[in-house]
Amino acid sequence: MSDEPPTTDAPNRNTLWGRVVVQELVRSGVRDVCLTPGSRCTPLTNAFAEHPAVETWTHIDERSAAFFALGRAKATGQPTPLVCTSGTAVANYHPAVVEAANARVPMLLLTSDRPRTLQDSGANQTVDQEKLFGDAVRAYRTLPEPAAEDRTVRALRTAVSRAVATATREAGPPGPVHLNVPFEKPLEPTPVAGDVPADWADPSHALAATGREDRPYVATTPGRPEPAAADRARVVEAVEAAERGLIVAGPADAPTPDRDALLGLARASGFPVLSDPLSGLRFGDHVDADGVLVCGGYDSFLDAPAFAPGDADVDDPPLPDLVLRFGASPTSKTLREYLRDATRAAGTRQLVVDPAGGWREASFVASDAVVANPTRLAAAVSGRVASRAAPGWRERFAAAERRHWEAVAEAPAADEPPYEGQVLATVARRTPAPATLFVSNSMPVRDLDRFGEPRAADLRVLGNRGASGIDGITSSALGAGAADDDPLVLVTGDLAFYHDSNGLLALPRNDLDATVVVINNDGGGIFHVLPIEAHQAFTEFFRTPLGLDLSHLAAMYGYGFGRVHAAADGLDAFADLFDAAVDAPGGHVVEVVIDGEGSHRTREALHERVRGAVARDLG
Amino acid sequence: MSDEPPTTDAPNRNTLWGRVVVQELVRSGVRDVCLTPGSRCTPLTNAFAEHPAVETWTHIDERSAAFFALGRAKATGQPTPLVCTSGTAVANYHPAVVEAANARVPMLLLTSDRPRTLQDSGANQTVDQEKLFGDAVRAYRTLPEPAAEDRTVRALRTAVSRAVATATREAGPPGPVHLNVPFEKPLEPTPVAGDVPADWADPSHALAATGREDRPYVATTPGRPEPAAADRARVVEAVEAAERGLIVAGPADAPTPDRDALLGLARASGFPVLSDPLSGLRFGDHVDADGVLVCGGYDSFLDAPAFAPGDADVDDPPLPDLVLRFGASPTSKTLREYLRDATRAAGTRQLVVDPAGGWREASFVASDAVVANPTRLAAAVSGRVASRAAPGWRERFAAAERRHWEAVAEAPAADEPPYEGQVLATVARRTPAPATLFVSNSMPVRDLDRFGEPRAADLRVLGNRGASGIDGITSSALGAGAADDDPLVLVTGDLAFYHDSNGLLALPRNDLDATVVVINNDGGGIFHVLPIEAHQAFTEFFRTPLGLDLSHLAAMYGYGFGRVHAAADGLDAFADLFDAAVDAPGGHVVEVVIDGEGSHRTREALHERVRGAVARDLG
Repeated sequence: MSDEPPTTDAPNRNTLWGRVVVQELVRSGVRDVCLTPGSRCTPLTNAFAEHPAVETWTHIDERSAAFFALGRAKATGQPTPLVCTSGTAVANYHPAVVEAANARVPMLLLTSDRPRTLQDSGANQTVDQEKLFGDAVRAYRTLPEPAAEDRTVRALRTAVSRAVATATREAGPPGPVHLNVPFEKPLEPTPVAGDVPADWADPSHALAATGREDRPYVATTPGRPEPAAADRARVVEAVEAAERGLIVAGPADAPTPDRDALLGLARASGFPVLSDPLSGLRFGDHVDADGVLVCGGYDSFLDAPAFAPGDADVDDPPLPDLVLRFGASPTSKTLREYLRDATRAAGTRQLVVDPAGGWREASFVASDAVVANPTRLAAAVSGRVASRAAPGWRERFAAAERRHWEAVAEAPAADEPPYEGQVLATVARRTPAPATLFVSNSMPVRDLDRFGEPRAADLRVLGNRGASGIDGITSSALGAGAADDDPLVLVTGDLAFYHDSNGLLALPRNDLDATVVVINNDGGGIFHVLPIEAHQAFTEFFRTPLGLDLSHLAAMYGYGFGRVHAAADGLDAFADLFDAAVDAPGGHVVEVVIDGEGSHRTREALHERVRGAVARDLG
Repeated sequence: MSDEPPTTDAPNRNTLWGRVVVQELVRSGVRDVCLTPGSRCTPLTNAFAEHPAVETWTHIDERSAAFFALGRAKATGQPTPLVCTSGTAVANYHPAVVEAANARVPMLLLTSDRPRTLQDSGANQTVDQEKLFGDAVRAYRTLPEPAAEDRTVRALRTAVSRAVATATREAGPPGPVHLNVPFEKPLEPTPVAGDVPADWADPSHALAATGREDRPYVATTPGRPEPAAADRARVVEAVEAAERGLIVAGPADAPTPDRDALLGLARASGFPVLSDPLSGLRFGDHVDADGVLVCGGYDSFLDAPAFAPGDADVDDPPLPDLVLRFGASPTSKTLREYLRDATRAAGTRQLVVDPAGGWREASFVASDAVVANPTRLAAAVSGRVASRAAPGWRERFAAAERRHWEAVAEAPAADEPPYEGQVLATVARRTPAPATLFVSNSMPVRDLDRFGEPRAADLRVLGNRGASGIDGITSSALGAGAADDDPLVLVTGDLAFYHDSNGLLALPRNDLDATVVVINNDGGGIFHVLPIEAHQAFTEFFRTPLGLDLSHLAAMYGYGFGRVHAAADGLDAFADLFDAAVDAPGGHVVEVVIDGEGSHRTREALHERVRGAVARDLG
């Protein structure tokens, strides 16, 4: 890169240090960075700011910055480095670090620090940053203090290029890597005589001073977890032995496994695909393809007597004999309990495919941990397998799906208040493709799971299901949306919207577009689903109504604003506002005011109708 | 406490567990709690909510909640426990935990967790919370899983009562303690047959089931660090040997050392007291007392040739031969450099008095670490010492102080723009007493240091100088203000105000009063003080202007709002708005729009005038 700032010639050792860090990151594929203001990080900030290949995203709140970087990395599969000053700034990254660790999202934390001399001295803004994120990072290193010394700079180049590899390594799995970077003053690019030796540009220093042109100093060839042929053959045997198999696609790690490979497996095996909204398989052209059944309504019917084991009043329903699981634990509790009960009743074999050899099955009924790249395994198996699927097995799921989506398409009965799922159903139907759709915890992702009908449209659906927090949602969504020029739609709740209100600043600050749908049920709707609803302290301590007029936030941060009262205006009014917001440039907040308790009642009534209809059809 | 919820009879083991925790906390002196919504924490939330002796503060954002608890503990010296749900919620506490660790503020983190069974299983909202705050806490414990079993409950009572003692122990020093509390379902107080044994209320279980009425299960007698008589005598000798001594009172740990003891020492020794704005000695009746000199202008004149060593053009100024340091490292860089240069030039002896035996002197020139309770040591020494202070030594400081405060009282010259220090000077002069005054980083605390004139008024001045972050300022201030009914004044900057915008919610939610002065210089004014100002990326990456109309936040959270443009309206207009805000109930935001660069220029010009005047008087 001919116009990159020189690493053979720098006014002082700190400037050199910053430039080498950024040079190695760029050579490792990094193309952007999230910056927050501070003094100690000056050498890094300047090096990113002056590099022509780097796009800078500026933030003020480090917590929001880290979630923004997380969202971007979810969308791109590559880390967006984070740079902050020393002190509590670093700790503000921690919530996003925990999410990245659990959701397996590449992240690279470059935290500037005071020099070792000042540790434990009471010096201002000097805290113990060593291993600050504990076990939540894949790797930690305090970098050596800057020096224009040959081996030291080679150590730096090695550490930085390896950090990117570690943050992205499939078998790692991907996750956060923390480099703590101490600097002595001067932090600015002021010339310091003798700081960089006069012969630094000589060929004898070339390896340290310039690295390896156009490639990282250490190019890591990532190992890909491949089962041995004999092990793969046993998976093929298991699939061939199954008459009633299921493919369960949970929330996908980034990058999402190849759709075609998993669908090829579904086609070859004849198994239905239960596709979590975050699996990458709920939406896409494959939904209409022949020979595959992509299910999205299972959360509504797998507890119906026609499916669920253990109801004494009905004949034993046919149960799966094999489950192939990809991705993380499914969002649907109904599905998780169905798999648990089926295994307890029928000894269902459950294979959890995970390239990192992790365990993501909290009912503890799965029988096989298959350490493999999902795409490669699915492709290999589907090319070898001959289906023995039982007649009518897939059709049972297809019939139940039809009943569920018919019920979702109908308006609630006259005496039933509108329900929040209608908002998600509308968004899933109307979001133009291609687009990124980000859904918050706790209810929007669950409602998209139940009410977002599979659709032949290229929607990239993302959510923070690593730790399932309600923090950092807006920032994560804006970060994901910043990965390309497709429209971004976020569906969030009033508590999550408040929690990351600072995240709204990223849009005007970085000139982004977004439609933010806020389902305002004045508090935590999730708690209506929980037994605490019946108890005395419910409203004050659990639902925790906000009582805020959210239009003020929209006004301050320069978003358009529209509000729909679901009961009075109806959901059609929401659809119109939503369409207009998505079409228009810039940021738009569309608030849907809805009664959480009424919504919960209608949701339950609809669930009963589906269960009844499925029982009549299949019972 | 007769109407406290029974621990001899509870519907299930989780309810019992929560009640025992709260019972022990109340018996250890805890009287309030900060709650945030969540499901996993239900047994704790309910137990706090139902206890008649506990005041509950509810928050949504755990980061703000933790800073609120920090602020309250700064004011009271007692921890306000924090309760949150599992997952990323916990990590949101980390910034305040780091501040509490560094500023020595008692804090008790009760983080609910999923049971051990679900660790590393991919279960929803289950993250690795063990030792999540690493070395930033004084103690960590994962509590045993709830059981109505005699020894297990005794272990719980022991752990909880000891946690409070550890969080508050002077020699610890005080700081955060983390108890991670796993719960299995059911989390609600639903009866579970057999969960609490039928004989739990029998006398044989009384020790576990009821603890020790009206006292903590373990009453800790905290050891107080006392130097041996011979060591104390050596301090007396050192003071008596000194002709030019100084007492430097840095930011105080909570509780603040007794004013009378330190002033007694000042009177007995004849040493001037250089009182940091956060020392607890800048304001109070003692300021007008005979025989003591309380200095607040040193930041402006200790680099004048009449004081600072090393200027070749002037005769050697008289330098201190003894410095007695209390509290943390002073805010004033001028003072720190003066002490460093004096020691290098004259071998000044510097005694750092610290009850925890810590080291808070980052120039590494101090000669003696005296492990002692400051109040006791000062009282003991002042009763024994006979002053040998050199004639004129204290008067030099008194003369320089006069020059400085004269300059501050004058308006800037006609061609000088207003400066931010005028806001702090005004606030320090006009805040009614008694009151709590909270000052933000980075500039308000520095400006209060230089421009807040010592005053015979009972102002409790607080700031977050442990790690000196700009996060959590509003919450910390509101928490401190919530400790009593005195007025609360916060002076913050636009970046800090934005960073903790969520913290504003605590006021309407908990019915508090506050006057929030926002010095809006559209970005980080501190960076004008740093060399980076001269460099290219300054505005975008360092000053980081916000460009936000902050009145929207005031409107959303129900604060009154007033705005002064310093250049156009003058600082008198600010004084009027400020007085009205302090007088009125509820929350008020007073924004002062001021040009940061112009402010910095006037600040520098005033500094030069003071240095010049002092040189003429004393040089």
